[in-house]
Amino acid sequence: MTTSQTLPTAPALTQPAVWLRDNCPCVECRDPRNGQKLFNITDLPADLAVTEVRGTTVTFSDGHVSLFDPAFLSAREAPDDRSEDAKRLWATTEVPEHDWARFLADPEHRADCLDAVLTTGFTLLRGVPVTPGAVLDVAAGFGFVRETNYGKLFDVRVEATPTNLAFTGLAITPHTDNPYRDPVPTVQLLHCLSNAVDGGESGLVDGFHAAALLRTEDADAFAVLTRTPVTFRYADAGAELVTSRPMIGLDPTGRIREVRFNNRSMQALRLPPKETAAFYAAYRRFAEILTRPELMVTFRLGPGDCVVFDNTRLLHARTGFADTGDRHLQGCYADLDAIASGRRVLRGQLAATHLRELFAGPGTADYLGEDVTQAQHMLQAAALAESDDASPQLVVAALLHDVGHFTGPLTGADLMGGTDNRHSHVAADWLARWFGPAVTEPIRLHVAAKRYLCAVDPAYADLLSPASTYTLGVQGGPMSAEEVAAFEAEPYAADAVRLRRWDDGAKDASRSVPGFDHYESTLALLARSGGRARG
Amino acid sequence: MTTSQTLPTAPALTQPAVWLRDNCPCVECRDPRNGQKLFNITDLPADLAVTEVRGTTVTFSDGHVSLFDPAFLSAREAPDDRSEDAKRLWATTEVPEHDWARFLADPEHRADCLDAVLTTGFTLLRGVPVTPGAVLDVAAGFGFVRETNYGKLFDVRVEATPTNLAFTGLAITPHTDNPYRDPVPTVQLLHCLSNAVDGGESGLVDGFHAAALLRTEDADAFAVLTRTPVTFRYADAGAELVTSRPMIGLDPTGRIREVRFNNRSMQALRLPPKETAAFYAAYRRFAEILTRPELMVTFRLGPGDCVVFDNTRLLHARTGFADTGDRHLQGCYADLDAIASGRRVLRGQLAATHLRELFAGPGTADYLGEDVTQAQHMLQAAALAESDDASPQLVVAALLHDVGHFTGPLTGADLMGGTDNRHSHVAADWLARWFGPAVTEPIRLHVAAKRYLCAVDPAYADLLSPASTYTLGVQGGPMSAEEVAAFEAEPYAADAVRLRRWDDGAKDASRSVPGFDHYESTLALLARSGGRARG
Repeated sequence: MTTSQTLPTAPALTQPAVWLRDNCPCVECRDPRNGQKLFNITDLPADLAVTEVRGTTVTFSDGHVSLFDPAFLSAREAPDDRSEDAKRLWATTEVPEHDWARFLADPEHRADCLDAVLTTGFTLLRGVPVTPGAVLDVAAGFGFVRETNYGKLFDVRVEATPTNLAFTGLAITPHTDNPYRDPVPTVQLLHCLSNAVDGGESGLVDGFHAAALLRTEDADAFAVLTRTPVTFRYADAGAELVTSRPMIGLDPTGRIREVRFNNRSMQALRLPPKETAAFYAAYRRFAEILTRPELMVTFRLGPGDCVVFDNTRLLHARTGFADTGDRHLQGCYADLDAIASGRRVLRGQLAATHLRELFAGPGTADYLGEDVTQAQHMLQAAALAESDDASPQLVVAALLHDVGHFTGPLTGADLMGGTDNRHSHVAADWLARWFGPAVTEPIRLHVAAKRYLCAVDPAYADLLSPASTYTLGVQGGPMSAEEVAAFEAEPYAADAVRLRRWDDGAKDASRSVPGFDHYESTLALLARSGGRARG
Repeated sequence: MTTSQTLPTAPALTQPAVWLRDNCPCVECRDPRNGQKLFNITDLPADLAVTEVRGTTVTFSDGHVSLFDPAFLSAREAPDDRSEDAKRLWATTEVPEHDWARFLADPEHRADCLDAVLTTGFTLLRGVPVTPGAVLDVAAGFGFVRETNYGKLFDVRVEATPTNLAFTGLAITPHTDNPYRDPVPTVQLLHCLSNAVDGGESGLVDGFHAAALLRTEDADAFAVLTRTPVTFRYADAGAELVTSRPMIGLDPTGRIREVRFNNRSMQALRLPPKETAAFYAAYRRFAEILTRPELMVTFRLGPGDCVVFDNTRLLHARTGFADTGDRHLQGCYADLDAIASGRRVLRGQLAATHLRELFAGPGTADYLGEDVTQAQHMLQAAALAESDDASPQLVVAALLHDVGHFTGPLTGADLMGGTDNRHSHVAADWLARWFGPAVTEPIRLHVAAKRYLCAVDPAYADLLSPASTYTLGVQGGPMSAEEVAAFEAEPYAADAVRLRRWDDGAKDASRSVPGFDHYESTLALLARSGGRARG
């Protein structure tokens, strides 16, 4: 391995020593069972320095040695999933529709549904039972009901003495709900039990898009609305809720993160007259944008429909209807954190399911002239990795290292026929949809590792099976001295060499090893972040 | 009444026309049943102007006329109750203690308990049943449980394979919970079922105070922590929660509003090295402040104790204990909005109860030489006000206008003995603990109104009862011309004159009117804000 202070793949090695030390992944620094950090920043010497860097191994002035995953060092920050940067803003959009029965039965449909709420801001679920209380079942499918003074659920229908405008037949212009609450409910669900009135159509506006338009059209007005706290208030016999927040909430880097807009519960501002004037000019501009007809998506809720939307971003509206009509919705609140969590977990589960099917299908084919199937070969490699105390990432790399034989345009049979199917690259590229470099890169290099070992270890070639010796030729034969140097400079070369040894030893028809199930939860955990950085 | 563009008591009349119009209290502009605004800002003409101001009556260029409550026009913004300005920051503090049985039975004790959580940041409830699940009953007493992926409640005890450091016997340094969640749970409850281990003491630190110290000691470090998003993450088999927020969250005016501090779940920052260094220097300074022993309040949770604390402000900690010991807590999350709402509602209910007791006690005394009791007199005045379509504030003023006869140092008997007990001022000052000027000022002026009417209305004096004619003399007799002019300039003079007429007509022993119950909910509603401004 080469020594370098600044490997091109590890720009983070130029970070201050305290950053490196604070992120040490060793078992003394992080609980290996849950990844939680086991020390405090004040436990580290204030004058901590790096004394040596070898590859991605860093030695500190306090004697501690940290071995970093190169992928960690080269990772970049994922955007905050609540900010405008993580959303698909829209002026107008197709109404995303999902089906409740499929939501329950099909994880892929469910993931797509959660995704719509997180990125588009809403979905229209069809086929929810027309049963009072069903909205709570829907909420439980997305996460957890946020109970409030309105109850676990609330009814929206015409009332004789309404405590809230929502319970009359009047039109309701675009607004967010409960701005007088902090934390505001981040998700709202509205489930239709009946809607036989004239009017009573539903509309949604993307508040993030509208705020972004305001920023473009009138940057000063945008700034005023981000820095002026507005008090919202609601009172009835049993509750008095008051919150002061700006209409447009930004994250600390200035990106849009939250919209509160509700003329009904907005209270009088108490500012000097000049600031009041500037606020009202900005408020009017924002209101004018929000009520542009072309920015509103409208639809009619029929019995069994349930709209689920991000209440920190979308404004909802309703056209007026006759007070005498029969219109009955039930609503409840929930929170985005559970939806985002659910989407990540589903992503991992879907990957694990897909890979399980691969093992149960194409994986049952013979493994290139060996006495084991492809699946048996990979399960044996994973078992060897696990008994060798490899990291979870490297165990998964061993488990999946040969999927390139049946996921690319060329198969293992092509390779045996004399055409290199580049299965290590095919597998790494294909798996990158789910896994980060700590999984994909040792796989990418596992054929190169064979060519490397043949060049540097005279005894190695003798260990290869006849088929592997044959494919070595198709794959380029032993490495040249130049190729050896280049290989050794690869951040994951050592992992690839370890993987290669397990690969070579995983062709024993008589060995009994754990099945795919044994790895499924680890697979699912690692596959969640979709190859994106995790810190 | 005088005419003026800028009454000294109504500085808000200098606000832009759109502010005045947007805050019009008339029944066309606000739903009289729930106070919600019935129009949008875009419904108002962009070139709206004020054409006339008479007293607090404003006419606009669109022809609309608004009659403002002078108290509304002179009100000031109440501080956001989540910001440092609404808290009692502490370096060290007595542990506020409350009793669960009293909490349930005694609204005053309950209000004091909610107040401790809102202003001091926590309370230690004693005497909670040592029963699994009892923490959920406590949470229901404060508001609503926030269910999460950990369940409605979670157990904190030593586990064989902990997914979280909380479930080991290791010491836990000061931290806030669930920083990886957004919205973060704003309240945490921890209920002790057993604690027989050595160690395992609980500690709390006021994060707002610590952040304020950092601001004083190192303003640059404070600024860095308010503007740097930090990613917190938690993952287990069923959840993956990720949130990016600054360690110190500010409101738009720069006041401290939220602290997130948790070394265990903090992820690697991805900043340029120079910014990383600045962040770590700031982070270390904040951590050093947070771990100053003199800033931590410690106590030992025994069986039946339940600590309830503000998780956006206080950091909690635990000393280490032997893994083998018997220590079992149950925790759950809840939210501050319900606690703040509950405190407001209780404030109103306590006021109503206190006033009910006044009516049932001293109020049963004879009313200064009349055929009715004090209580009958005030109930008759309120009934007259109500039949005269007075505002709820003025009805309440009529109901309470004479409480000064039995709440001050001098009584009605003193007045009848020839010494003015100044009961109108005594009542107004005493009631200001609960009510705003729209209630208290007509009361303060109701004796002056008698002297005024005697001066300007020749027929009025003849209507007075003999006792009232007698006390007129004690109270100063009819006003001089100068006094008349000064009285007319008072913002609540007209209301006081109306009140005076009902007062004079409320001495009929044969009349049957609604009792105190009839007014109790209105009293409770109006008494909530403690005389503070409401917009």
